[in-house]
Amino acid sequence: MTAGERSIEFWFEFGSNYSYLSVMRIGEAAARHGVTVAWKPFLLGPIFKSFGWESSPFVAQKEKGEYVMKDMVRQCRKYGVLWRQPSVFPRIALLPMRVALIGAAEPWMGEYCRRIMLLNFSADRDINSEAVVREVLQQLGLPAEELVRSAQTEQNKLKLRQQTETARTRGVFGAPTFFVRGEMFWGNDRLDDALAFAAGNIPG
Amino acid sequence: MTAGERSIEFWFEFGSNYSYLSVMRIGEAAARHGVTVAWKPFLLGPIFKSFGWESSPFVAQKEKGEYVMKDMVRQCRKYGVLWRQPSVFPRIALLPMRVALIGAAEPWMGEYCRRIMLLNFSADRDINSEAVVREVLQQLGLPAEELVRSAQTEQNKLKLRQQTETARTRGVFGAPTFFVRGEMFWGNDRLDDALAFAAGNIPG
Repeated sequence: MTAGERSIEFWFEFGSNYSYLSVMRIGEAAARHGVTVAWKPFLLGPIFKSFGWESSPFVAQKEKGEYVMKDMVRQCRKYGVLWRQPSVFPRIALLPMRVALIGAAEPWMGEYCRRIMLLNFSADRDINSEAVVREVLQQLGLPAEELVRSAQTEQNKLKLRQQTETARTRGVFGAPTFFVRGEMFWGNDRLDDALAFAAGNIPG
Repeated sequence: MTAGERSIEFWFEFGSNYSYLSVMRIGEAAARHGVTVAWKPFLLGPIFKSFGWESSPFVAQKEKGEYVMKDMVRQCRKYGVLWRQPSVFPRIALLPMRVALIGAAEPWMGEYCRRIMLLNFSADRDINSEAVVREVLQQLGLPAEELVRSAQTEQNKLKLRQQTETARTRGVFGAPTFFVRGEMFWGNDRLDDALAFAAGNIPG
């Protein structure tokens, strides 16, 4: 296996709590396995709508939703990740997702995603606000105004819709989802298996 | 913590593929943690119906269902558990579940459950057949005819319905589900966390 093959596609959405866990973990974990991360932001809303759902299954199914918030307390403790239950769930994250699409191959992508996620799941901030997204980009020393403008172009909006449609046609039904050499792995609970497969340590 | 407190409630159903993984693993894993298992068979069907679902979400949601069968191949390989995709899914398991209710506190419970599960998920047999259930009980040297008769009494049928209703009122929405000192853990992916909590090694 060449180094170029040691990569993982990471499909995620800033509104998704289990994507939060993976965003916080994947940088360090992938590096440890010698695996590179291909960041794939996509929108969960249109995926859920394609199943005839109005919102997250954690909202539609009350029992599961209540459990998931308890699970998050324990999972965050297990992984050493900060946690405060957002007062709005799931949060709309259209603007930061559009910026993520622009930054997907940039060196600042990982840190940008971690900061947006921490604002949602630890600081309980409205991550879809232009002021909040600018703030994060400025903290990273990036041209915030220019990036936000590029993110809002019709071309970039269309590109995010297309990436979401690609997710759907590839059988993605939730987030986070990982692809390694065409094999799909669903959920933060499969991140370690997916990385081990990417590193060539386990069969698919 | 006294030894009596080191126990885990294991809510499961023979038709459930992720229950299969936990049934195969829990005996050894719980013993390793010094934790005793309280076996709690219950019916998933009435739980799903209470959500307005006609069948398993793995059937209703095609994309997820297809993924789950691939996930099972990998998970079974990871845990060293046999796997053959059942030709009927989910299988009705009313009779073996009723027998499980009778056997829940008996020393033969673990081996009985593993054999029923292997027949479903490795031998692709109809586990709701009286002949199949008798066969398993006979293999274990048990009075098969008497047990099957007791399992089919109105009293025992009612008891399984009541245990299922208890699951529902406690917020169970899928299987396997574990309870440790009142804390709920959902899914085979949480078995290790639940056992560590039962053993007092991690906070709840």
